Amino acid sequence: MAKKTTTIPTILVTNDDGITAPGIKALIEVAQQFGKVIVVAPDSPQSGMGHAITIGKPLRLHEVHIYPGVEAYQCSGTPVDCVKLATDILFKGGHPTLCISGINHGSNASINVIYSGTMSAAMEASIEGIPSIGFSLLNYDFDADFTTAQFVAKQIIEKLLGQKKIPHLLYNVNIPDLPISHLKGIKYCRQAKAKWDENFVVRDDPHNKKYYWLTGEFVNLDKGKDTDIYALENGYASIVPVQYDLTAYKNFDKQKQFWDSKQKSK
Amino acid sequence: MAKKTTTIPTILVTNDDGITAPGIKALIEVAQQFGKVIVVAPDSPQSGMGHAITIGKPLRLHEVHIYPGVEAYQCSGTPVDCVKLATDILFKGGHPTLCISGINHGSNASINVIYSGTMSAAMEASIEGIPSIGFSLLNYDFDADFTTAQFVAKQIIEKLLGQKKIPHLLYNVNIPDLPISHLKGIKYCRQAKAKWDENFVVRDDPHNKKYYWLTGEFVNLDKGKDTDIYALENGYASIVPVQYDLTAYKNFDKQKQFWDSKQKSK
Repeated sequence: MAKKTTTIPTILVTNDDGITAPGIKALIEVAQQFGKVIVVAPDSPQSGMGHAITIGKPLRLHEVHIYPGVEAYQCSGTPVDCVKLATDILFKGGHPTLCISGINHGSNASINVIYSGTMSAAMEASIEGIPSIGFSLLNYDFDADFTTAQFVAKQIIEKLLGQKKIPHLLYNVNIPDLPISHLKGIKYCRQAKAKWDENFVVRDDPHNKKYYWLTGEFVNLDKGKDTDIYALENGYASIVPVQYDLTAYKNFDKQKQFWDSKQKSK
Repeated sequence: MAKKTTTIPTILVTNDDGITAPGIKALIEVAQQFGKVIVVAPDSPQSGMGHAITIGKPLRLHEVHIYPGVEAYQCSGTPVDCVKLATDILFKGGHPTLCISGINHGSNASINVIYSGTMSAAMEASIEGIPSIGFSLLNYDFDADFTTAQFVAKQIIEKLLGQKKIPHLLYNVNIPDLPISHLKGIKYCRQAKAKWDENFVVRDDPHNKKYYWLTGEFVNLDKGKDTDIYALENGYASIVPVQYDLTAYKNFDKQKQFWDSKQKSK
């Protein structure tokens, strides 16, 4: 885990909505209150990219001067590519103190975490050993009000940077779309069990060929009051500790017996 | 969990290397021994796509006749898109008995699980409640020998379909690149802790502009003998039960105290 240093923190900021999105601007403003900010973000929107990486083609990385006083780069790849390029090329293996991703335009609570470029960027940084947080606001609008999200992000970053050792490497933070006066606090939660019910729109294109466009409805399958969805529905911001060991440890030993039992060959 | 039925199983086959890859052909051959096979796979290679989905543009889905006697569709989207289209459009909410993904040309053991389109397709099916397995062979060559991988896949599918209730919804299976005579068996494992050390190749393009191309080295950080990497290095195929609840439950309660302690506002 990263040790607290007395030197000024270096904060890597990224996102999946692209470097010009209002959400990343809001997050940069928060980050600037805590240390030196370096931005590496996609040059175009990359929502829903999950943990995609670019293998089969080269990437571009260009310095841009769009945020006064902030070193910023746009990258032609995915959010995870941005973090990989930042750590290998810009930090050359030396790590930033913290990586923050977002503020995403829309929820990354519950099952959204696995589709989310915002969270995958944060996860990639955590794999590198960099403490990381993804922030998402429950409002998909381009011109959403990020004031409450900034308020929450500031509290969480302050709390983490105030520790001698940051207690965990990766967090998923979601913020309800409420004014600060209506926010009840920040709740530590587990990921709610949920899924998307797909409902593709099927239409004919101008050349009479069929196309399919993804739409769907979020279905919460979890009645727990300790979940991120419950917290968000009840006026709290949610913070979920996230891991990238995907092993299903529940019933692991029982299943081991099943798999270790005599294997037939045919 | 899916109940065993006396009717013939329906098996959805997908992958991330594309519908024409030898690996999916090998898996289709195995699947045909167990039931009715429906293939929905990307129309082009999609390695490293992770859990990416296509939101901002429409998808195409075309029936193709490349595998004699097999209903097969190529899709313009990601591996996860293929599964979403299959469940919503082709199965119309009715589920296949099993979804199998692969056989991937290359390892998806350890941390590779989060970058893998093969495993993300299987995970998406499991979110839908469909028992799913991703298969990967530790050989990246186009013309790799899939005989041992087919042998392992057959054993595992047979064992699962032989149960009254399939005991878990999602497995990551990796097969060492060995002849059957050298394979020691199938080991039930946990995901090894590992990472990729990035090393981007940086070059100038023909127009004197810099480009960056991802390369890297796999670094196993885990000395455990109960991991997938250990099993594979010692001549076993590995099977890891996988989950998509990414909550880090280790030290959850201790961390809860930390986060529930008085939150300062500024």
